[in-house]
Amino acid sequence: MLKLVVDTMGGDNGSSAIVEGILDFLNEKKDVEITAVGKKEELTKLEGICRIIDAPDVVPMDAGALEVMHMKNSSMMVAIKTMKDEHLDAVISCGSTGGFLSASTINLKMIPGVKRAALVAPFPAQKKGQKVVILDIGANNENSPEELVQFATMGRLYSQAVYGVEEPNVYLLSNGTEEEKGAPEVKEAHQLLKQANFPGFKGNIEARSALSGEADVVVCDGFTGNIFLKASEGIAKYMGFLVKGMFKKNLWTKLGYLHVKGGVKEMSETMDYKSTGGAMLLGVNGVVVKAHGNSDAYAFKCALRVAYKLAEADVVNKIKGGLNQ
Amino acid sequence: MLKLVVDTMGGDNGSSAIVEGILDFLNEKKDVEITAVGKKEELTKLEGICRIIDAPDVVPMDAGALEVMHMKNSSMMVAIKTMKDEHLDAVISCGSTGGFLSASTINLKMIPGVKRAALVAPFPAQKKGQKVVILDIGANNENSPEELVQFATMGRLYSQAVYGVEEPNVYLLSNGTEEEKGAPEVKEAHQLLKQANFPGFKGNIEARSALSGEADVVVCDGFTGNIFLKASEGIAKYMGFLVKGMFKKNLWTKLGYLHVKGGVKEMSETMDYKSTGGAMLLGVNGVVVKAHGNSDAYAFKCALRVAYKLAEADVVNKIKGGLNQ
Repeated sequence: MLKLVVDTMGGDNGSSAIVEGILDFLNEKKDVEITAVGKKEELTKLEGICRIIDAPDVVPMDAGALEVMHMKNSSMMVAIKTMKDEHLDAVISCGSTGGFLSASTINLKMIPGVKRAALVAPFPAQKKGQKVVILDIGANNENSPEELVQFATMGRLYSQAVYGVEEPNVYLLSNGTEEEKGAPEVKEAHQLLKQANFPGFKGNIEARSALSGEADVVVCDGFTGNIFLKASEGIAKYMGFLVKGMFKKNLWTKLGYLHVKGGVKEMSETMDYKSTGGAMLLGVNGVVVKAHGNSDAYAFKCALRVAYKLAEADVVNKIKGGLNQ
Repeated sequence: MLKLVVDTMGGDNGSSAIVEGILDFLNEKKDVEITAVGKKEELTKLEGICRIIDAPDVVPMDAGALEVMHMKNSSMMVAIKTMKDEHLDAVISCGSTGGFLSASTINLKMIPGVKRAALVAPFPAQKKGQKVVILDIGANNENSPEELVQFATMGRLYSQAVYGVEEPNVYLLSNGTEEEKGAPEVKEAHQLLKQANFPGFKGNIEARSALSGEADVVVCDGFTGNIFLKASEGIAKYMGFLVKGMFKKNLWTKLGYLHVKGGVKEMSETMDYKSTGGAMLLGVNGVVVKAHGNSDAYAFKCALRVAYKLAEADVVNKIKGGLNQ
């Protein structure tokens, strides 16, 4: 029986979206126990289904680590503390990214030997069913070459543990495929990985090929990864808008829509970041999943699926083991 | 009468694509004179239509500045030299990016006061007809805060000169909208722009909103800009592929396609990087346009349109004037 703890506050859509997400998720999975932390009076729908912990304070969206640490009665801090004290399997929040990541790191501690934690999310590859593990997508503002090398190690272990890829192909995200291309720290990380004969290291990959299927793991610093993530989201949304507009022109195009409705839905689902659900903070001593701030019930259900899958795959222990080798 | 000089060699599709692109362009524009530089025997179709200069050597795709400078008989060097010696209005090439950018900079010289040149390309905004000027998209591997501030100045002048935006909204590309978000040099550039009361500076913008229409100019370092550009290209291509797949399922979906064929075409054109044509190297003493290495005739025609438009708008002199203020 896996045990997840959920911070139900701090999302853009209020606790009701989170509550619906939890209920939907529990309809899918039976072998799981959820502790919901938040304003008790907003969680009545979960009574008798989840364990509820009353923690009425809400961490503001722009809160930093220190502020969160001081808000001892906030749903976020209580959720993290409960995870730690009771050795639960995962904690999930859609509140302040910076606050949640720092407070989790400080409370749960880093895996020994890890220099910096990295946010990781799987992206859909053009090859059906394949997932591309990209990290860091935003836990850091800059990273050293050594940190990038460690991200490569963690990404590789994640791809093996979560997606069962035996020998993941690992690439560095750069502005050219040649080894002399890239920002200074990317060039240096390239040399470090090459000299170490890093397993599965295939060199640099350009952003346009990152999801083509060649790469199982794409490594970048947190600033660049965040630009990649959000550029992809932005263009996907933009194109979705163009696709919709295309069908709205006249009666004939509306008729056309009826014929491909299923296909449009499939496409939106493939590209919808909500179905990705959440990003994991890799390198911390526990499964920490950050859901999108604007998660609706569906997105939050997907974030719970991610947390469940990561806990089930025992990804934290596998990373510990891998880093010790 | 505008005078353009074209390096016809070094593209992935050979000189024939470039020749077709030139012919198509000359069907559109009459008040323009083109000098085509390359292997004379491959340019016979242009005889009597363009001035032809025989320069048989081809610069390799991975050539650096020094190598290009030494290839005095290469089509690229002869094109750049001709532009310089004869004071022509623009030079266009789809050959080695690094080689072309460095050789142009060294030969044509920087505009006095410019620290670093930046590659700039207009992206289609979600608001119909609006173009977003994004720079640098790849001339540099890293940039200082001061260079980013200068990119803001050049981008603003470009938006005014080429798109006639009177008061462009200028943003810094970052991983969050708050001013304390970003890589260290972005944070510092933010403070410099703020302290200088930079006209139209509106703060940070996230990659997902860069094309929403709020921004007329988006400033980033060359490495980050290249990731943004190529992530956008990659996702647009990926989605185009999903859209096609959606119509291919069965007879009904194929019928659906007939109804929205026009819309699909319109969408592909909006998102097709080929229609962007080329990127200009801003900061150099002359209009230098880099076309995509894999330009086909259509893409190259679009690159010629870009060069024509930039020369016509007298963008180089406007930047000189603006930097002096």
